[in-house]
Amino acid sequence: MKQKNRRTFIFPKPVSIISNASTAGPKEGNGPLGGYFDIVEQDTHLGEKTWEKAESRMQNKTLTLALEKIGMKPEEITAVLAGDLNNQCIGSAYGMRGLNIPYIGLYGACSNMAEGMVSASIMLNSELMNYLAVVTSSHFSTAERQFRYPLSYGGQRTMAAQWTCTASGAVILSSEKTDSDPKITACCIGIINDLGITDLSNMGAAMAPAAADTISSFLIDTNQNPEEFDAIITGDLGYVGSNILYDLLKEKNIDIKKQHYDCGKIIFDPDKQDTHAGGSGCGCSASVFCGYFMKKLRENKMKNILFSATGALMSPLSIYQGESIPGICHLIQVKNR
Amino acid sequence: MKQKNRRTFIFPKPVSIISNASTAGPKEGNGPLGGYFDIVEQDTHLGEKTWEKAESRMQNKTLTLALEKIGMKPEEITAVLAGDLNNQCIGSAYGMRGLNIPYIGLYGACSNMAEGMVSASIMLNSELMNYLAVVTSSHFSTAERQFRYPLSYGGQRTMAAQWTCTASGAVILSSEKTDSDPKITACCIGIINDLGITDLSNMGAAMAPAAADTISSFLIDTNQNPEEFDAIITGDLGYVGSNILYDLLKEKNIDIKKQHYDCGKIIFDPDKQDTHAGGSGCGCSASVFCGYFMKKLRENKMKNILFSATGALMSPLSIYQGESIPGICHLIQVKNR
Repeated sequence: MKQKNRRTFIFPKPVSIISNASTAGPKEGNGPLGGYFDIVEQDTHLGEKTWEKAESRMQNKTLTLALEKIGMKPEEITAVLAGDLNNQCIGSAYGMRGLNIPYIGLYGACSNMAEGMVSASIMLNSELMNYLAVVTSSHFSTAERQFRYPLSYGGQRTMAAQWTCTASGAVILSSEKTDSDPKITACCIGIINDLGITDLSNMGAAMAPAAADTISSFLIDTNQNPEEFDAIITGDLGYVGSNILYDLLKEKNIDIKKQHYDCGKIIFDPDKQDTHAGGSGCGCSASVFCGYFMKKLRENKMKNILFSATGALMSPLSIYQGESIPGICHLIQVKNR
Repeated sequence: MKQKNRRTFIFPKPVSIISNASTAGPKEGNGPLGGYFDIVEQDTHLGEKTWEKAESRMQNKTLTLALEKIGMKPEEITAVLAGDLNNQCIGSAYGMRGLNIPYIGLYGACSNMAEGMVSASIMLNSELMNYLAVVTSSHFSTAERQFRYPLSYGGQRTMAAQWTCTASGAVILSSEKTDSDPKITACCIGIINDLGITDLSNMGAAMAPAAADTISSFLIDTNQNPEEFDAIITGDLGYVGSNILYDLLKEKNIDIKKQHYDCGKIIFDPDKQDTHAGGSGCGCSASVFCGYFMKKLRENKMKNILFSATGALMSPLSIYQGESIPGICHLIQVKNR
């Protein structure tokens, strides 16, 4: 066996994040991290006739900007790994159509950004290719009407509910060693965890067990302590899920509270922006990673972080059929040089 | 640049297909390939209360059988790459839940089996891991009511429409060289092709341009001729799409008619089984590859094949919004030793 640990890989060839870009909608742009996003859209339609077309446009713009930042053309990218929350992942399919980049479609729900970077990093370690892109997005209005209620219905949201972010993030990854870019040095592939949560308005609770499983497995497999990191990031557990994560990790004698950031908690202001349990959606963790944390790494204000993102793998139909919500969490370690 | 060609990779370490399993529903079992499937279910509910639960059960059974055939346990697999046609890929999420295998969710519509084997083969060439599994499925009744009409509506199907197969296929892939198993020696990652087809009942036409693009690119990149292959397989173009494929390849002076098999054409008997333009669905190409073609390779009756599978990346919603159907096609080359 070549593998020391089953799910955890320390890369012989760390993968360089040679570019990153982020887009946010108006509400996200008005939040505490507004200044960190490359693009803040003022119109949630992005000039398109439908929200779904707007989401595709946002994903296309974000990846295009990531390429432009380093003067790369789409044809230099071997493949893009992309996915989103829409049925059949149409945010990505139509967003990437026309860019002429080989396309590997992913579905990891809100874990997409981490799933994509895990998968791309493993692929780049094959040394078969030089550049891969990862992109994802979410849109409040496409997600809300697909997963919950028509927006015009005006349903009241529970306090455990999260607000799907209108946002997108993209990275360009390279197998070539660059001096100045942050590197993905290790990863952990998620396992489906399902502890029986059936409440579609409490995704944090459904996803926290997967986060606890992946984060604890990674720390144990790599023999690292939470204190070694400037940040241990989760995607969108929100306020409810983050507290459950702390409790679950406590059972394993792991305390990450001092280093923990949850993208869903920090993207909105809990006092001024009424989002109940925080933000969510593929675009939440993607835009906060690509906007906020990548900036901290590039400025050397953070040197060593864990980025994990959780996904809830149910569908409205599976819940109507009495199923509980399977959660998953993928993780990467990123060092700033 | 390490890459000679952008999308095409000849693997330095060919990937061994150490196990394969297939499941088919009753209609598929009564077709010409019925004798090649490992399991033929007589009940499309597989003892479950809903078709969606039945599809998950089918995917679970198929992967479990692939493992049992070689005496492997789920915990020996580094990860499973899985996806299906259901919204949010619930066939895979619930099918794999409980197996305790790290999970990488894919969405490539009917191209899933090829997308999974392409992605897994690249990952295994990293030499970071030993074993990956790929599994997918489709179910006539879950797909029909999600993509088209409620079954009880009894809508008349057009002659260009295809019949979504109730079927599943799974492979176990290894980076270790085995003497007796067929090997994935090369692959080509698909690019989204969209020539403007908007007819949800003519998927063959929507997907044929992607198939022509990928097959021609691969043959040109690897400097191989159609005559060198015992079979050049497409997933589910059906009768309409296959003829369009021939026409599109003719423009590039490529003729694959003698070597061409379309899984959607061969899985049903056009005279005795009324499926109009043929079969379709992720499970169509997956079960025919894992059932029929893997048997031919293992028996040395075929020695060198191309397996490509196409996917239509639209959703019903994107079509209602006036969009056309983006198609994609991923490809692998498999040699029998």
